[in-house]
Amino acid sequence: MVSNKNILIAQGGGPTNVINQSLVGIIRQEKKYKSKILGSINGVNGIINNRFISLNKISENDLKTIANTPGAALGSTRDKPDKKYCKEILKILENKQISKFYYIGGNDSSDSLRIISEYAKDTKYKLQCIHIPKTIDNDLVCNDHTPGFGSAAKYVAQLFSGINYDVKSLPGVYLGIVMGRHAGFLTAASSLLKKENDDGPNLIYIPESPFEMNTFLNQVKSIFNKYGRCVIAISEGIQDKNKKLISQKIIKKTEYDAHGNIQLSGTGSLGDYLSGEIKKKLKLPRVRADTLGYPQRCFLGSISEIDKKEALQIAIFASKYSNKHNSSFSAGILERKKFTVPYRTTFTANSLEMVAGKTKIMPQSFYNIKKSFVTNSFLNYALPLIGKKISKTKSII
Amino acid sequence: MVSNKNILIAQGGGPTNVINQSLVGIIRQEKKYKSKILGSINGVNGIINNRFISLNKISENDLKTIANTPGAALGSTRDKPDKKYCKEILKILENKQISKFYYIGGNDSSDSLRIISEYAKDTKYKLQCIHIPKTIDNDLVCNDHTPGFGSAAKYVAQLFSGINYDVKSLPGVYLGIVMGRHAGFLTAASSLLKKENDDGPNLIYIPESPFEMNTFLNQVKSIFNKYGRCVIAISEGIQDKNKKLISQKIIKKTEYDAHGNIQLSGTGSLGDYLSGEIKKKLKLPRVRADTLGYPQRCFLGSISEIDKKEALQIAIFASKYSNKHNSSFSAGILERKKFTVPYRTTFTANSLEMVAGKTKIMPQSFYNIKKSFVTNSFLNYALPLIGKKISKTKSII
Repeated sequence: MVSNKNILIAQGGGPTNVINQSLVGIIRQEKKYKSKILGSINGVNGIINNRFISLNKISENDLKTIANTPGAALGSTRDKPDKKYCKEILKILENKQISKFYYIGGNDSSDSLRIISEYAKDTKYKLQCIHIPKTIDNDLVCNDHTPGFGSAAKYVAQLFSGINYDVKSLPGVYLGIVMGRHAGFLTAASSLLKKENDDGPNLIYIPESPFEMNTFLNQVKSIFNKYGRCVIAISEGIQDKNKKLISQKIIKKTEYDAHGNIQLSGTGSLGDYLSGEIKKKLKLPRVRADTLGYPQRCFLGSISEIDKKEALQIAIFASKYSNKHNSSFSAGILERKKFTVPYRTTFTANSLEMVAGKTKIMPQSFYNIKKSFVTNSFLNYALPLIGKKISKTKSII
Repeated sequence: MVSNKNILIAQGGGPTNVINQSLVGIIRQEKKYKSKILGSINGVNGIINNRFISLNKISENDLKTIANTPGAALGSTRDKPDKKYCKEILKILENKQISKFYYIGGNDSSDSLRIISEYAKDTKYKLQCIHIPKTIDNDLVCNDHTPGFGSAAKYVAQLFSGINYDVKSLPGVYLGIVMGRHAGFLTAASSLLKKENDDGPNLIYIPESPFEMNTFLNQVKSIFNKYGRCVIAISEGIQDKNKKLISQKIIKKTEYDAHGNIQLSGTGSLGDYLSGEIKKKLKLPRVRADTLGYPQRCFLGSISEIDKKEALQIAIFASKYSNKHNSSFSAGILERKKFTVPYRTTFTANSLEMVAGKTKIMPQSFYNIKKSFVTNSFLNYALPLIGKKISKTKSII
């Protein structure tokens, strides 16, 4: 039995490893409310192009598999609706008598939702706009952390743990370029499985702290002289003291998306530039750079069990909350006051205006500028988020 | 109780995710023979520099953890012993009264072992030289496959499965540059979790098949026109019809190791060059290139349970065999005649001369040149090697 209540779900922005957990959470909960559940293909783009799909008849077995699949199962978009685009969306949603619109996305998507929600109010069309957060960058304000971050952080941590043992085997300098346009959380996560002082990563560079080439080279040299090797995690978004991207200085042809963001991933140029400087200026042996790239947000097989659970539960929370309160909101994870054990998650509802389009960066207490490394405070904050299902490691040398 | 029999273990070449399984297998078995077990730090380099470590007293608990740790727990080397180097090694081994020397490594390491073994014969020093194979490249002759390949193949397969769903979400062209200097096995492994015709990877380019830019661009265009997206796996070792590396053509400053191998990994230049050509010539949207790099051989968390088991068991087999037969040999995995279910592993002992320094490439039956894709024969060959512990996946669109 399907009621007359029509709801719509869409997914926007860069996908994550658990964005489909949220999708499935909404579907399951709205099924309980007997809603007619539609999905739009490729986010808001699917609305204006009238590409909808019914989600009521997907079997529980398939829902379970979809939830565990990387990428946005409904497709995603980089479109950012302007005034005309929004009016078009509203016309179509009204036509379809949609009463709730769930948009699973990051800060750009929440901003799209805010615009749509405001236009709906202006036209007196009763539409509940519900933002379900996701982003591997962990850069949403009013949130302790964001679904999607834990799994990406686990991937980056596991990758650097492996790299540590690889570089221990064949010593040299290793640079790993990590995703993160403005916030250094994911780059900082490279430290999460480090055990000994000489373990990699030895140095971490984040967008929040101005990148200065001479300081960088001196720090690399100092670590190499001390340990005979050096593993470095560098954010793709590192900037100089004038907030100019280092990437922008070296890439000849840049590419921008509809939100005005420069393309940072999908190219090895930053890593090649920095390893080139190390080779040229420090003349160290075996200098290698990897750009971690898209696998950070979609690698099949390193999902954090905590992240997975939260991505599912925040959607169920949002669905329940939306049924009780007839308002628009952005679902969130309440900030912990202390990073004490045991770890607990509390969900909350923030206003769209509070969250939309804003960017959270790493708090100063998480990063030691002098050491170019994270603090214990960051480790206490982030360690619970990657879960516990990680192999123990040990080397002989 | 330790007998007077002294044995030495070393690890050489690029580490893998299961090279320590083999190390631990030897230690466990030689402990049963009451041998005095030494390890040399950083392969043959540790022998001439007199860097040895006793391996008898490592607890079983630690051995278990070491076995599951990526990288070479004893350290590795790229040194290739020449005449003088070998004489130095023999002098030290004889001094230490070593009767068995286990070298865990690939084709370069087996060649080092062959040289040492021949010099030992010349000097009438009774030394058993035992090669335990490992390489993610899967390019050892006389072997069905090589320990280390299955786990690397699993990582590459999981990575491309995730990428497939990511590119489905935000359509475009994705290029993933995969390790493999001469053999395309690992690049071919990108196909192992592909399910539907339109799933990525859509195209696979290997070193064994001459790379021709126009054919490449036409194939990319054709796939993009058909599916609205294109995922491509490309070996770092792709060559033109004159066997000249494409990488070599575009890298200004190349780096060579002691074996005369050019540095292919640790730079994003090949990916950037190829994605640049696609952008320039085909003018397609969202063209992204990732160079998979070192995580392919050391990512913590994607070990194939079959690979793990074989890496352990081949070492135990080699140890047992060496105790029965007083000869030098290269332990191997017997080639399957048919790739039938259920999968079974049979170990064998090959002569060092048969294996050393030779390179196996992909059989022609594994690759369809016209389609630039693997055949079912390859899938049947490689699928059992990545094991079964992989999440099921499903998308909606």
